[in-house]
Amino acid sequence: MTEVELGKESNTEEKEDIVTPWDVESANETGVDYEKLIKRFGSSRVDDALIEKLEKIIKKPVHHFIKRGIFFSHRDLHGLLNAYEQGKPFYLYTGRGPSSESMHLGHLVAFIITKWFQEAFNVPLVVQMSDDEKVIWKDLTVEEGIRLTVENARDIIALGFDPEKTFIFSNLCFMGQCPEFYKNIVRIEKCVTYNQVKGIFGFSEADKLGKVGFPAVEAAPALSSTFPFIFGDKKRQVLIPCGIDQDPYFRMLRDVAPRLGYPKPALIHSAFFPALQGAKSKMSASDFNSAIFLTDTADEISMKLNEHAFSSEGNCDADVPYSLLTFFMEDDKELERIRNAYNSGQMSSAEMRKLAIDCLQPFIAQHQEKRKLVTDEVVQQFMTVRKLKC
Amino acid sequence: MTEVELGKESNTEEKEDIVTPWDVESANETGVDYEKLIKRFGSSRVDDALIEKLEKIIKKPVHHFIKRGIFFSHRDLHGLLNAYEQGKPFYLYTGRGPSSESMHLGHLVAFIITKWFQEAFNVPLVVQMSDDEKVIWKDLTVEEGIRLTVENARDIIALGFDPEKTFIFSNLCFMGQCPEFYKNIVRIEKCVTYNQVKGIFGFSEADKLGKVGFPAVEAAPALSSTFPFIFGDKKRQVLIPCGIDQDPYFRMLRDVAPRLGYPKPALIHSAFFPALQGAKSKMSASDFNSAIFLTDTADEISMKLNEHAFSSEGNCDADVPYSLLTFFMEDDKELERIRNAYNSGQMSSAEMRKLAIDCLQPFIAQHQEKRKLVTDEVVQQFMTVRKLKC
Repeated sequence: MTEVELGKESNTEEKEDIVTPWDVESANETGVDYEKLIKRFGSSRVDDALIEKLEKIIKKPVHHFIKRGIFFSHRDLHGLLNAYEQGKPFYLYTGRGPSSESMHLGHLVAFIITKWFQEAFNVPLVVQMSDDEKVIWKDLTVEEGIRLTVENARDIIALGFDPEKTFIFSNLCFMGQCPEFYKNIVRIEKCVTYNQVKGIFGFSEADKLGKVGFPAVEAAPALSSTFPFIFGDKKRQVLIPCGIDQDPYFRMLRDVAPRLGYPKPALIHSAFFPALQGAKSKMSASDFNSAIFLTDTADEISMKLNEHAFSSEGNCDADVPYSLLTFFMEDDKELERIRNAYNSGQMSSAEMRKLAIDCLQPFIAQHQEKRKLVTDEVVQQFMTVRKLKC
Repeated sequence: MTEVELGKESNTEEKEDIVTPWDVESANETGVDYEKLIKRFGSSRVDDALIEKLEKIIKKPVHHFIKRGIFFSHRDLHGLLNAYEQGKPFYLYTGRGPSSESMHLGHLVAFIITKWFQEAFNVPLVVQMSDDEKVIWKDLTVEEGIRLTVENARDIIALGFDPEKTFIFSNLCFMGQCPEFYKNIVRIEKCVTYNQVKGIFGFSEADKLGKVGFPAVEAAPALSSTFPFIFGDKKRQVLIPCGIDQDPYFRMLRDVAPRLGYPKPALIHSAFFPALQGAKSKMSASDFNSAIFLTDTADEISMKLNEHAFSSEGNCDADVPYSLLTFFMEDDKELERIRNAYNSGQMSSAEMRKLAIDCLQPFIAQHQEKRKLVTDEVVQQFMTVRKLKC
């Protein structure tokens, strides 16, 4: 069985989690069964040996997203690290489909870990803003898609990426700026059939043509020759930090890459960021009360946590406010203390909500301050086709 | 029934001509039944009234390709001419899939009539070299596709196009030079489903992804905003001279264009250029002896005409050498004399072959001389993104 054939829904009677780039719905209240998903997708668990290896190479602790199992699955990270140790650098690729004016907390997860990887390994980063995808899937014009790209790029830049090492591009614009992008799309599209994308992504025949073609667009930046102005004519392996729902694109490319003379892309996958209503679904921008937006005020954050967040008294594993702390509270010891107190019944759910509010309000407020500094000129700087300094 | 639904194979018992962009095979020895094709495709006959109107506007006779019924079918040419008379200029769009080093005589037909339209109406012309299509369909690399584009562009330029009014582009390169190309592709891909292209083009699920996406690539240059450097932000109607086998692309676009705020593209369709072996199939570059190539020597032309051309003594309508004269002998009276002599049995098929050889040898030799003058710099001039002078 090739990698493209993995991940299809099986025909067993047991209800399975739905995990596609557009739909995540777990079969059980406790959320997606990630052990099963790793098996179904044929990826590998991020285990102690891998964490140890990472820490040995970078000579510092891994990010808490990795230590706490938020990035729980990977593909070929061992191989990528071995090559790195032998002097073969990689590059980072992640992205965002700019479907709404303001991003929410869940959208930051891949960018936060990507920034950590960039700083730990001093490697270039390319960020795809798939505005073409959103124009095709949603009721958006091309012009609106590009505008949302710029607005979302502001939030990404506000996380503190280094402009000398980071290239952010809008698909709708970059396609017309760099011939190698389309050339790689054609090379990929020559290796994949409609049947295969139908199997991988669950397309139906009534789907728009653009949907059928999009997988090659998301896959192409994982071939380093898409960016000759960064990498010259050297082929580099890529590491893609992303939500596990994006894995199908790269499972497809991992079959194709060797046929085009490239190393397979390596990936590190995050678990889903839970909706306030519980881990059964992921946080979604389309439901105001399910998400904490980067534009929310302190009052809105309190309100959402107090009125909409799902609490599970005495059970951290199902408690949304606690889950938010695992993402955004950096202090491991304090988090451990909270976990023990809650699980043993010494801490009420009201107290837990308060802790989450106290953690998120300053995080969001600081983000908003940093975002104000991201002028049009700064965005322009990140989005200009240019050499990078690493 | 919308235009996209026209042209599908019907379910009647009667055997029908196969006419797709990749396959032309007539059900009968006499060649494709063009009257039936006009009905099936829902296009209009180029009739005396249209020819009269054309001649009235340009104040000179129409090209013999039009007078002799080689361009026999059209869409909306009346409307385009009415608009032209009211001071609304159009532009011309045609193209070539560069699948082989050397082009054959049949490949010139659309370019010859396009050059005539350009001179008669003084309008800009864009020429798509669909090297992406050929890379996907054939066993060609991206690099080879681009190289064939340049070689074929030399032949097109040698026909005498005005560099101040003509833009020739390679899809593989132009996609990375002009953002509006991809934007229009996305706009078109948002309006068409896989189901529709499957119906129009006969794709199967085992077809490569690139095939499924290509129709939008061929259609996009028929939207004038694909070329902002030529047309600014003004929307212009297009006239597309092409073989009738290319009609499906634009039938698809004629459904989409009004939804994107554009006038429907107008078309003028040519009949097929016959294979030397007879009108049952069209001349094909993949069979050396079925085609007269622009690189053929005088001796090769004699040999091919004498040994491979299908003769039908006393019957011009089925005689390939006579058919070649209808394309390339400009003198109407002489052609009429030949026709009468052959049909009445006064002229032998050997004499007819000789006439065709005498017509084609100097035509090809002159083409080869002109082609030598098309240096890399001249090709570069035509293929540079720039303003045109009309």
